[in-house]
Amino acid sequence: MAGGGLGGAIGGTVWLTGLSGSGKSTIAGHLRSLLDRDGVPALVLDGDELREGLNADLGFGEADRAENVRRVGEVALLFARHGFVVLVPVISPYAAGRAAVRARHDRLATPYVEVHVATPLEVCEARDPKGLYVKARAGLIERFTGISDPYEPPPSPEVRLDTDGTEPGALAAGLLERLRRLVPALASGD
Amino acid sequence: MAGGGLGGAIGGTVWLTGLSGSGKSTIAGHLRSLLDRDGVPALVLDGDELREGLNADLGFGEADRAENVRRVGEVALLFARHGFVVLVPVISPYAAGRAAVRARHDRLATPYVEVHVATPLEVCEARDPKGLYVKARAGLIERFTGISDPYEPPPSPEVRLDTDGTEPGALAAGLLERLRRLVPALASGD
Repeated sequence: MAGGGLGGAIGGTVWLTGLSGSGKSTIAGHLRSLLDRDGVPALVLDGDELREGLNADLGFGEADRAENVRRVGEVALLFARHGFVVLVPVISPYAAGRAAVRARHDRLATPYVEVHVATPLEVCEARDPKGLYVKARAGLIERFTGISDPYEPPPSPEVRLDTDGTEPGALAAGLLERLRRLVPALASGD
Repeated sequence: MAGGGLGGAIGGTVWLTGLSGSGKSTIAGHLRSLLDRDGVPALVLDGDELREGLNADLGFGEADRAENVRRVGEVALLFARHGFVVLVPVISPYAAGRAAVRARHDRLATPYVEVHVATPLEVCEARDPKGLYVKARAGLIERFTGISDPYEPPPSPEVRLDTDGTEPGALAAGLLERLRRLVPALASGD
């Protein structure tokens, strides 16, 4: 499975972790557009979409959440090894799960960048784009990250994004500049 | 997750089912080389390699085998939707599991071609490239397809390859010609 259809060049995984409503998916979408513009093969691995397919058998208990993160990490690794820059916006609340994904990438010498989308809980809850925090506060969602289940912030992510007061497009553009020093496939951007 | 890094063009899945030792992986390898030569983004999804990563949690009982096939199918679908022609050499002995993979592709309007590598059991067993049939006959491998576990031949595959007496390279070349009429991404080969 080594090599790939893109001249054998390796891509990398950009793992965006943060609370629900932190802006992970929005930033990933903007970044994807910038990479498309540059002609870089890129995709967003959307956790919700994967739960309709590969991870349709998984629930939201701790073990299933961990397994969800593990599988998303393996799929990201496959795409990265086939030349894609893979953007992965998933809450991934537990440090151990994220460390395992990183270790798998390291083992196969595949670039991996952890981005902490560090929007504070109060801001995420005030935004509440999907109305989930209201439901979680009302006790209608069990084990909701940040409310009734822990979020373990990354102690040393490659990138920490403070999103407050900055537009997602600008955050994505800034992130791309930092990624150029972290992902070899992005080093020679035009 | 729609679109992709390859201009949004969709690829397709070429699912090679057949007994252990039937020649699935060898034919897939030759076909991969032909597609590389043509500049078609292609990859071989190798079941054994996936069992070291995504499917490392699965064993060889009936339920785990079914789950293995399901996940390989979902990963193939993701790569096909991102422009790859995905070659999948897996025994996939049960008709129901193969039908489910096909249904998932149909649902997302993604080309899917079932290729039955129809090498007879006697020929596979005589070849026994990994020495598995000897072990299975000795009772050292439980539930070995064709010996102690059923193989359900596809009743109506898009392609049926009779491998006996033909070199794998020639089989792959013939298969590619047939795929040009079955996978739109391959229609305009040079």
